[in-house]
Amino acid sequence: MITTLRVQTSGPGLYDFTAAVEDALSDMNLAEGLLTLFVRHTSCSLLIQENADPDVLADLNEFFRRLVPHTDEASMSWVRHNSEGPDDMPAHIKAALTQTSLSIPFRNGAMMLGTWQGIYLFEHRDRPHRRDVVVHIGG
Amino acid sequence: MITTLRVQTSGPGLYDFTAAVEDALSDMNLAEGLLTLFVRHTSCSLLIQENADPDVLADLNEFFRRLVPHTDEASMSWVRHNSEGPDDMPAHIKAALTQTSLSIPFRNGAMMLGTWQGIYLFEHRDRPHRRDVVVHIGG
Amino acid sequence: MITTLRVQTSGPGLYDFTAAVEDALSDMNLAEGLLTLFVRHTSCSLLIQENADPDVLADLNEFFRRLVPHTDEASMSWVRHNSEGPDDMPAHIKAALTQTSLSIPFRNGAMMLGTWQGIYLFEHRDRPHRRDVVVHIGG
Repeated sequence: MITTLRVQTSGPGLYDFTAAVEDALSDMNLAEGLLTLFVRHTSCSLLIQENADPDVLADLNEFFRRLVPHTDEASMSWVRHNSEGPDDMPAHIKAALTQTSLSIPFRNGAMMLGTWQGIYLFEHRDRPHRRDVVVHIGG
Repeated sequence: MITTLRVQTSGPGLYDFTAAVEDALSDMNLAEGLLTLFVRHTSCSLLIQENADPDVLADLNEFFRRLVPHTDEASMSWVRHNSEGPDDMPAHIKAALTQTSLSIPFRNGAMMLGTWQGIYLFEHRDRPHRRDVVVHIGG
Repeated sequence: MITTLRVQTSGPGLYDFTAAVEDALSDMNLAEGLLTLFVRHTSCSLLIQENADPDVLADLNEFFRRLVPHTDEASMSWVRHNSEGPDDMPAHIKAALTQTSLSIPFRNGAMMLGTWQGIYLFEHRDRPHRRDVVVHIGG
């Protein structure tokens, strides 16, 4: 079964959409199998990360901001692709460094996430975006 | 169904092989399911990225070249594994930072890629290589 | 079929558990399909890498240690999440830069790994940990 989830973002950072994935899975009424997420964009990405301390999410975003600064900063003057704004090429790079697809086994109708794992859409663009994540659920 | 695609490379950079994956899928005559790519090497990798502006691909390659320079540069003097040339250990590191496997849902016989998404073999070695990518297509 | 493997770690580095995955697959008696690994933690990760020269594994670990130093080093003074020790937030970042899930096609009952590919648990914490990796095997 395939369905598509929409995640609304408002600037760089991690957006928890675990509950929406759980809803999609429970709609299926399947006991055991594999759930795969696929994001249909190249300037945001997917990440499974700790859902306990919000500082972890802020620190993750800050690490990537420092590793891949906006292209109006001197250290990024080598970048050619600037036509879509100083946050666009860094967004593609951050997406390359993280995930476009993720697969999670499920049993007894529930994803086998660890205690502290949440599913995140990692937005890398500055402006608000609507992001589509395809969910494939197989037996 | 499993098949293997071969991608010929000629130095570092991103090689679009979306059309070959589409052909493998259409050979299957399956309407809906999950397609998984797996690269059988540790010095190149897989990436889904923007297929509109070639500068994006050049910038991606350049970012990784700067993040992980060849081991004959001073900043990489700590590297031990040098027996296969100054581009080999950086290639393993770049592969670790990107993807060995990717999964893409398909429907109506077509992969659900976003408008600007292409599938790339990311070559990290300097010399030409023949790279094998396994394609698994499941219902 | 779903099973869980446990990997015991003793500090940062790459732990080869290819043989345990092979055993789980041969227990299944399935000829062809897709095997997916999922790690139930956010401070370690999964990686497929070269299994020939142990220096490659040491260099990989060292690269990530230099890219994401412990938070008691000056370059990481911006980190907020310090309550679980100077190795915890770097561990989350290193996990984000590598993989939480991996998919590997198999045929004739054997994973289609390349000649030099091994499957590793990449531990990012300083203290010993028991790490759970879920294995999903589908036809």
